[in-house]
Amino acid sequence: MPIKDLNLELGPGAEFDTIRTMLLRWGALAHGVGDDAALLDVPAGSRLAVSTDTSVENVHFRREWLSAEEIAYRSVAAALSDLAAMGATPLGMVIALTLTEQWRAQIVQLADGFAVASRDLGAPIVGGDLSEGSELSIGVTVLGTVERALTRSGARAGDALWVTGRLGGPLLALRALQSGTAPLPAHRDRFAHPVPRLREGRWLAAHGATAAIDCSDGVAADASHLAAASGARIILEIDRLPLMAGATAQEAAQSGEEYELIVTAPGTLDHRAFEREYGVPLTAIGHVEGAGADGAGVETHEGAHRVPLPRGHSHFSG
Amino acid sequence: MPIKDLNLELGPGAEFDTIRTMLLRWGALAHGVGDDAALLDVPAGSRLAVSTDTSVENVHFRREWLSAEEIAYRSVAAALSDLAAMGATPLGMVIALTLTEQWRAQIVQLADGFAVASRDLGAPIVGGDLSEGSELSIGVTVLGTVERALTRSGARAGDALWVTGRLGGPLLALRALQSGTAPLPAHRDRFAHPVPRLREGRWLAAHGATAAIDCSDGVAADASHLAAASGARIILEIDRLPLMAGATAQEAAQSGEEYELIVTAPGTLDHRAFEREYGVPLTAIGHVEGAGADGAGVETHEGAHRVPLPRGHSHFSG
Repeated sequence: MPIKDLNLELGPGAEFDTIRTMLLRWGALAHGVGDDAALLDVPAGSRLAVSTDTSVENVHFRREWLSAEEIAYRSVAAALSDLAAMGATPLGMVIALTLTEQWRAQIVQLADGFAVASRDLGAPIVGGDLSEGSELSIGVTVLGTVERALTRSGARAGDALWVTGRLGGPLLALRALQSGTAPLPAHRDRFAHPVPRLREGRWLAAHGATAAIDCSDGVAADASHLAAASGARIILEIDRLPLMAGATAQEAAQSGEEYELIVTAPGTLDHRAFEREYGVPLTAIGHVEGAGADGAGVETHEGAHRVPLPRGHSHFSG
Repeated sequence: MPIKDLNLELGPGAEFDTIRTMLLRWGALAHGVGDDAALLDVPAGSRLAVSTDTSVENVHFRREWLSAEEIAYRSVAAALSDLAAMGATPLGMVIALTLTEQWRAQIVQLADGFAVASRDLGAPIVGGDLSEGSELSIGVTVLGTVERALTRSGARAGDALWVTGRLGGPLLALRALQSGTAPLPAHRDRFAHPVPRLREGRWLAAHGATAAIDCSDGVAADASHLAAASGARIILEIDRLPLMAGATAQEAAQSGEEYELIVTAPGTLDHRAFEREYGVPLTAIGHVEGAGADGAGVETHEGAHRVPLPRGHSHFSG
């Protein structure tokens, strides 16, 4: 049932009650949900950026690992991270929610998680759809505007490779959760409450970044996406990765769902100005070379030798 | 896994194979899926229209009723119908697909159904997401552009109420399918292959329509949405409903998932010009009055009396 039908007083029924509950919790964070489609304005000179991301129970998370608020928040943060990687500003989002009966009882907590994400990350809820199903599924489609978009394909030989934040927390949290132990609070927080680097992405786009991707599969894997899209070789200096306390460099290289930004930009990028502005480290972790005879890819150093980097992938996914 | 990662040659794996298969079937119908977000342009003077719709197996359809192609086509058609009701032109769509292992074996058929819808209805596939799950779920978010949007709230006292097409087919098809008998081909076609009235919606917006909604819950229910949003009373002449062969007026009033347009416009609307242009009937089925003391709502006639209309709802939905 489209969430748009929900501000009508259409009598009783579980679906209507659920939608009314959500709209009440959302208040002014939900815009324009009274028509068949929401209407939004893209300013002249800007392009529209669109991305979609689905989180499914037992595929992307387990119920016992996260609160309902965290599950809802995290699904929005992950989707918005794709806008951050483009240097875009959120314009709005639509939420497609599939609930089991058990999850319907948690609708207030889920709605509140969406509300926190909407408010904190600046993305109004402009539409949605509510279905029943046999598992919780949250589909978030995000819309943003961007004047000068960062893409994956712009990395140039001579650029430095940069990453925001400190890596390894989500992998360590996930490993603890999967083994039934409690993760360190700092690691758990990075897993449960990722912060898409929206303002940071716009700053980087405005300060000479040539290409960007968000870190969802792990730095090693995501750098290989950048290298392939740019037709370049990326030399990743594993021992320069910025580490969360407790993580090794190998763990940091493979930790996924970080939602930090991996960016190519000239080595002269003023990372200290970035760090002062956002209180987030911006670290040079390698450089870009022409593809040469070996073709596009990612390499690292092992002693004096360069070796192709095994791609890590820490998604909790079959 | 985002469908955008899929044009990279990232080695084997069922999800990558599935995405590669889809991208191969889609060819040029899929645009800009190589970055974190797709970039689209909204022409100056136009607004962006956005809507989302989810189809879940055993909630919105049953596997034995429809082919995989039809399920995929129908999920897109239903979503685009919301753009038709706004008078909008499709700009693109993103598809969030959750597959079971059994459905993964039908990926070519599903991809082809999306391709037919994309091509026939003029909506490029600009992004997507592939997940595994315990049931097939198809989430389609559609994006369109519109210069003069039709909304639900513009109906004015004195307007006539119009509907496109002939009603009743989906309800009769659904009734047959639910009782295990074969629907008439014409009824089945209206259920399996609905055609969103995109060009028709734009024509109506350009020719004086004041409000519109697509018929997803049945004319009676959808007219009540229009009445509520417009703060008006709508008098629906049940015996003037245009009928599919085999349907009664009551069945036509309650048949949902029609994806015809219900529109308010002056009674002088040139319905013959519309019918010549599109080969689809446009029928006056009532009129709009001020809300008066009784408030907004829908009424019909029973002999000499006006009676409130019971709302029908034929969705196959628990």
